[in-house]
Amino acid sequence: MLYHLIDWLKTVGIKFPGSALFQFITSRVLLAVILSLIITTVFGKKLIQYLRKKQVGESVRDLGLQGEQQKKGTPTMGGLIIILAILVPTLLLADLQKAYVRVMIFSTIWLGVVGFIDDYLKLRAKKIAQQQGVAYKKGDKDGLAGWFKILGQVGLGLVIGLTVLFNDNTKVWREYLGDDVSNVKNMKTIKFQGVERHFVEANEPITTIPFVKGHEFNYSKLLPASLRGPFTNILYVLIVILIVTAVSNGANLTDGLDGLATGVSAIIGLCLGVFAYASGNLILADYLNIMYIPNLGELSIFIGAMVGACVGFLWYNAYPAQVFMGDTGSLMLGGVIAALSIIVRKELLVPIFCGVFLVESLSVMIQVSYFKYTKKKYGEGRRVFLMSPLHHHYQKLGYHESKIVTRFWIVTLFCVVFSIVTLKVR
Amino acid sequence: MLYHLIDWLKTVGIKFPGSALFQFITSRVLLAVILSLIITTVFGKKLIQYLRKKQVGESVRDLGLQGEQQKKGTPTMGGLIIILAILVPTLLLADLQKAYVRVMIFSTIWLGVVGFIDDYLKLRAKKIAQQQGVAYKKGDKDGLAGWFKILGQVGLGLVIGLTVLFNDNTKVWREYLGDDVSNVKNMKTIKFQGVERHFVEANEPITTIPFVKGHEFNYSKLLPASLRGPFTNILYVLIVILIVTAVSNGANLTDGLDGLATGVSAIIGLCLGVFAYASGNLILADYLNIMYIPNLGELSIFIGAMVGACVGFLWYNAYPAQVFMGDTGSLMLGGVIAALSIIVRKELLVPIFCGVFLVESLSVMIQVSYFKYTKKKYGEGRRVFLMSPLHHHYQKLGYHESKIVTRFWIVTLFCVVFSIVTLKVR
Repeated sequence: MLYHLIDWLKTVGIKFPGSALFQFITSRVLLAVILSLIITTVFGKKLIQYLRKKQVGESVRDLGLQGEQQKKGTPTMGGLIIILAILVPTLLLADLQKAYVRVMIFSTIWLGVVGFIDDYLKLRAKKIAQQQGVAYKKGDKDGLAGWFKILGQVGLGLVIGLTVLFNDNTKVWREYLGDDVSNVKNMKTIKFQGVERHFVEANEPITTIPFVKGHEFNYSKLLPASLRGPFTNILYVLIVILIVTAVSNGANLTDGLDGLATGVSAIIGLCLGVFAYASGNLILADYLNIMYIPNLGELSIFIGAMVGACVGFLWYNAYPAQVFMGDTGSLMLGGVIAALSIIVRKELLVPIFCGVFLVESLSVMIQVSYFKYTKKKYGEGRRVFLMSPLHHHYQKLGYHESKIVTRFWIVTLFCVVFSIVTLKVR
Repeated sequence: MLYHLIDWLKTVGIKFPGSALFQFITSRVLLAVILSLIITTVFGKKLIQYLRKKQVGESVRDLGLQGEQQKKGTPTMGGLIIILAILVPTLLLADLQKAYVRVMIFSTIWLGVVGFIDDYLKLRAKKIAQQQGVAYKKGDKDGLAGWFKILGQVGLGLVIGLTVLFNDNTKVWREYLGDDVSNVKNMKTIKFQGVERHFVEANEPITTIPFVKGHEFNYSKLLPASLRGPFTNILYVLIVILIVTAVSNGANLTDGLDGLATGVSAIIGLCLGVFAYASGNLILADYLNIMYIPNLGELSIFIGAMVGACVGFLWYNAYPAQVFMGDTGSLMLGGVIAALSIIVRKELLVPIFCGVFLVESLSVMIQVSYFKYTKKKYGEGRRVFLMSPLHHHYQKLGYHESKIVTRFWIVTLFCVVFSIVTLKVR
């Protein structure tokens, strides 16, 4: 809104020192990072005090892990401060008329609310158990029913998918190599190093795919020719829903050690920032041979705020944590990461750059399936990991919580760099 | 050397899949990051085992700090693996004919050797004390004499300063606004958005300065007009020596908690990468209104390796550390950071983006001076901090080591973003 205010002031002829800062996207991105760092570190302390006073400490399940008992009394719902630190800089500094910015603001609030309700219900169940003098046991009755969470994720996937498919502001450019350029709609002609090249601007269910010439994949290719058209759109929306659900749950599962999900999300955010920058810059996109996506510039302000919010939240969330993000934070961050991956059309790289989320999710699936399978076959359930999700496995192996977290961060950085490299290999 | 090999193969007509990766600087930077991460994590383990076997564990001084006794037996000299992980990718992937690359390789080895000798002498003093059955006391006799370390730093500063001043490959471009362009030597003419602009390429003792129009400062302005010329060069070299010494000692002092100096250096490395990228790209440099510095591209491969080496070293150096970098690492990293700052002509921003090094150094100076001053005045020495360098002050206040380290990282990130912002404010 500050952006719009200064823009308006300029139209009526009022300028002030420093107003040039607001013209450029890069400087607005940097300001967003700084602002979100300040919001989290300064207001974080107050929120933690408030949450602690309201006794919203999440009871830590007794998993027999070292240092676990220390964590009792640490408040949860810290995700609220992350949400605030994402929304305030975005609202102040980004151009709010862009569809991408709006979708991201919506995603943040939507999954934030779903996570908040979940956290709230869990805390209420715990309080009731305490009042009744019953030992609190984490069970099916506390928190949201599973289907409600999934409904939230499906709803978000639907909104994102439809926006990408039908909004006027979410088109991509694809090179037009035909001869007759006079009859093509939405044609853009650009001179590259003296050569005229033609691009068609359109909403398409396409994405970036590594290792392949052209780096492009149209989801309609998954369907027989006779079924394309509307069915492609349905397929695309289904895929978007799948991705939003998977990444959101992955972040949720990863959020089990101090600073783990926070740091991993920050690093993934940086990666998405690179993708947005490269895809949103015509020269760079052409050089990398990936599709050019207009209007991504304003999105990078959101990404800057998100990275800053995660890093700033680490101030209190790093080992030993004074606050947990709760589902308010982890469902939201996962959803935001998924939404951004889809918008920058890099969702097929998610298994690489969100590798930690993937492996954490897989560890749970493998553990549970193998347990059920062996129980049926041998009469007793067997385990693959000492405990799942994976980070608890390493804890059981005797690694220090802080060490595991740093190493998962490093692995994420490796995944991120690797996913960027894939775009260069042809 | 791999770079030169593939380049040579191309000239004789041999190409193989993936060789295109080596053409582009960006992909070589990314490969350098990946390679250095692999070297540190894979070979790090072996080196740690070897160092431990050789019993080169640094005895931790008894400072009465929590958890300190656990650190006994942790080997030092881990900086060796950082040096390896910087040099191998650089030697393989960078164009070794560029002066900047050579200077950086020299800096790494030079201060690495100085630090190694220092570490080695300290360990020997300790061993002798043990053999003689004497309690080991850190004193003046162990390690290098102070003046020898300083001599190493001064020597490096001299080499860097003279290279920047006189090497053919270390010139910068400055816009020439005069009318008569026919008689100017080393003139480069470039068309920017249709407008022809003229630049002079020259070795100059100039640097970037924030908040000022033109963003440029010539050190000769510090001297009266009559003294300029050769005296400017002497002044410039002195300033370079000062910066190398200060940053190198700052990193050395900061290296007191698990992962602290390592993480801070990695983040500062990222910042220097941004500076090198922006200053080495004519369009970006013009847009930011900072001087264009040719040949910086190859330098970014070195920077990538350095960031990867620090992050990879964290794998073992993060709390609880299995290895310390020792002076081998910290003197070297500080020197490398100083050298890079000078090469990308951003040394006046060092107090901002190396803020943590600065504050750590200041805390020691303030503590010592105040103690001496009060001792003289009141007969008893008083302290400003519970302990210096600053990180120990927070430890005494009861903060967990891991928390202090993460927060110092966050502060560094803030400093880095802020220092980049300064370039946009006019």
